[in-house]
Amino acid sequence: MNAFDAACPVPTNEFEHIVLGHGSGGRLSAELLERVFLPAFQSPVLHALEDQARLLLPGAPDACLALTTDSFVVRPWFFPGGDIGKLAVCGTVNDLAVGGAVPKALTAAFVLEEGLPIADLERIVASMARVCAEVGVEIVAGDTKVVERGKGDGIFITTTGLGLLPRSRQLSIAAARPGDRVLVSGPIGDHGIAILSVREGIAFETALTSDCAPLVSLAQAMLEVAPTLRCMRDPTRGGLSAVLSELAARSNVGVRLDEAALPVRAEVRAACELLGLDPLYVACEGRLVAVVPAADADRLLAAMREHPLGREAAVVGEILTEHPKLVTLRSRFGGERIVPELMGEQLPRIC
Amino acid sequence: MNAFDAACPVPTNEFEHIVLGHGSGGRLSAELLERVFLPAFQSPVLHALEDQARLLLPGAPDACLALTTDSFVVRPWFFPGGDIGKLAVCGTVNDLAVGGAVPKALTAAFVLEEGLPIADLERIVASMARVCAEVGVEIVAGDTKVVERGKGDGIFITTTGLGLLPRSRQLSIAAARPGDRVLVSGPIGDHGIAILSVREGIAFETALTSDCAPLVSLAQAMLEVAPTLRCMRDPTRGGLSAVLSELAARSNVGVRLDEAALPVRAEVRAACELLGLDPLYVACEGRLVAVVPAADADRLLAAMREHPLGREAAVVGEILTEHPKLVTLRSRFGGERIVPELMGEQLPRIC
Repeated sequence: MNAFDAACPVPTNEFEHIVLGHGSGGRLSAELLERVFLPAFQSPVLHALEDQARLLLPGAPDACLALTTDSFVVRPWFFPGGDIGKLAVCGTVNDLAVGGAVPKALTAAFVLEEGLPIADLERIVASMARVCAEVGVEIVAGDTKVVERGKGDGIFITTTGLGLLPRSRQLSIAAARPGDRVLVSGPIGDHGIAILSVREGIAFETALTSDCAPLVSLAQAMLEVAPTLRCMRDPTRGGLSAVLSELAARSNVGVRLDEAALPVRAEVRAACELLGLDPLYVACEGRLVAVVPAADADRLLAAMREHPLGREAAVVGEILTEHPKLVTLRSRFGGERIVPELMGEQLPRIC
Repeated sequence: MNAFDAACPVPTNEFEHIVLGHGSGGRLSAELLERVFLPAFQSPVLHALEDQARLLLPGAPDACLALTTDSFVVRPWFFPGGDIGKLAVCGTVNDLAVGGAVPKALTAAFVLEEGLPIADLERIVASMARVCAEVGVEIVAGDTKVVERGKGDGIFITTTGLGLLPRSRQLSIAAARPGDRVLVSGPIGDHGIAILSVREGIAFETALTSDCAPLVSLAQAMLEVAPTLRCMRDPTRGGLSAVLSELAARSNVGVRLDEAALPVRAEVRAACELLGLDPLYVACEGRLVAVVPAADADRLLAAMREHPLGREAAVVGEILTEHPKLVTLRSRFGGERIVPELMGEQLPRIC
């Protein structure tokens, strides 16, 4: 046991009631999954814990289906750079994209609270349609339920995405190997801080907008130049820290980030300092994290920077054999510290 | 214009806010769909308005995918004969089953309210797993979000179902033809009255339980003996009336029900009289409505009665050229009255 082991978070399965942290994307979310959902739902596909389920297609030897679902409960519904509708489409197509799938169809289910202005619903739905058109995907099925005033919060949207990918494509959060490089496609934390700035009434000198965007074409471009890609993820709830903590645990490797290389906008850094947050834990909604063998890192980085959504991409870290299952950060000053898993809830209802 | 035309409900697209009736499954639900969702989402598959989207599979000339989604917000979570988890699986597999599809995979997304007892969640999830095992389907992907106390109502579940069906199978709500017979697989209204009895504290001499059940094997058995089946639907929100109103409108036919032939349990009839409800509008969650050419009706009825979930099946009506787009009921005493579409909300949050 070393200093790193000692800092590992201790699981606490002792909650008798749901708390906000169970929706954080961090340690408590993982514990709820392990305690309640995984024991009940014995699907090997679910237990693979990828961002999308891969299903074999009878009679189609070369292709797989990818299936993913997410509920969106973000507040406020409208924020700089997006709204809950744009987020509901981007979030789900991105979970397909990071598995290397091309989205083919979406479903959308709405839980509306009595009293929701129909003009707001129309604006949200138009926003969903715009992103669908941009991605080239259709909403093919839907549902609407209405709950009494005070029993919901305006609008919750659940989208499910169906995609197609070549059967040979096997990206996985468990596939990282020592020596691999970690890349991000742009500055981290924009979405979370954009939401928070609206909620808390923080004004920035320059307008900070959410990075919310569909990542299908970026992901496809990356796969084209680097078919050796081990894994891609979109760092949403729990931020870069959550993705890399999961990667470290599931690939049984150490991850070391280089603070000086991490792209963080000045406004995000300033807001984080003001609010006592760490950008590593703040959600993005239009960024990719990728892990790739070192030999292909430069080529991948160049391709990412050529894409409009990857202009500020950077190599930010490395996969190690040392301290397996842990994420560390080498600071600007040369020191190294553990980046612990998010234990509670940092920014509720960020997506 | 005759007496029937005069009784047609008048659309009222003048709401500025969502009301409970927008979730009723009746006229207001249809209007919200026509006003907000269909103009924005231009998918021909969505515009077909079947219970499931049919998607062609590249490289699989004989098969189609079926995709459907539903949110479940029923209160209370536990009721005689089921719970929100059982309902969330049955409702979605049934929407696949009525299109003639066999469910292959489900996704489940949970919106939990802070404070939900984890023991309740475990019980609900176990119930979902039981029905999945019974149907032979797996939950392959999921999501959990948590909202603050007072911003939700314990638990909302959205399930999405993916199924497979032969490409030649073309059941459709628009396929009914004059002369066809209408069958139901069992007594109507059990689910709605079971829920209401818990909510309102109505005690029956005999225990009334929800009919909530997965209909996959019944639907498959029906298709086997009657491949001429025009259409199947499960009469959930809005009950038998909602399904037949939609059928009459979309097939441009009249539907005449025979009151004496309609199976309704004595407890349901009594509760409806007490509460001023009409069983024709009360939700079922384990019943099928089928439309079939007259020549095949007897054979289909016999097959349904051989299935455990169809023992009380009955031929309850006929498709007519007269009064197109309307549903009528021939009473026990020989008179005939219009069964108007449900305008407002009868039983909120029944599913």
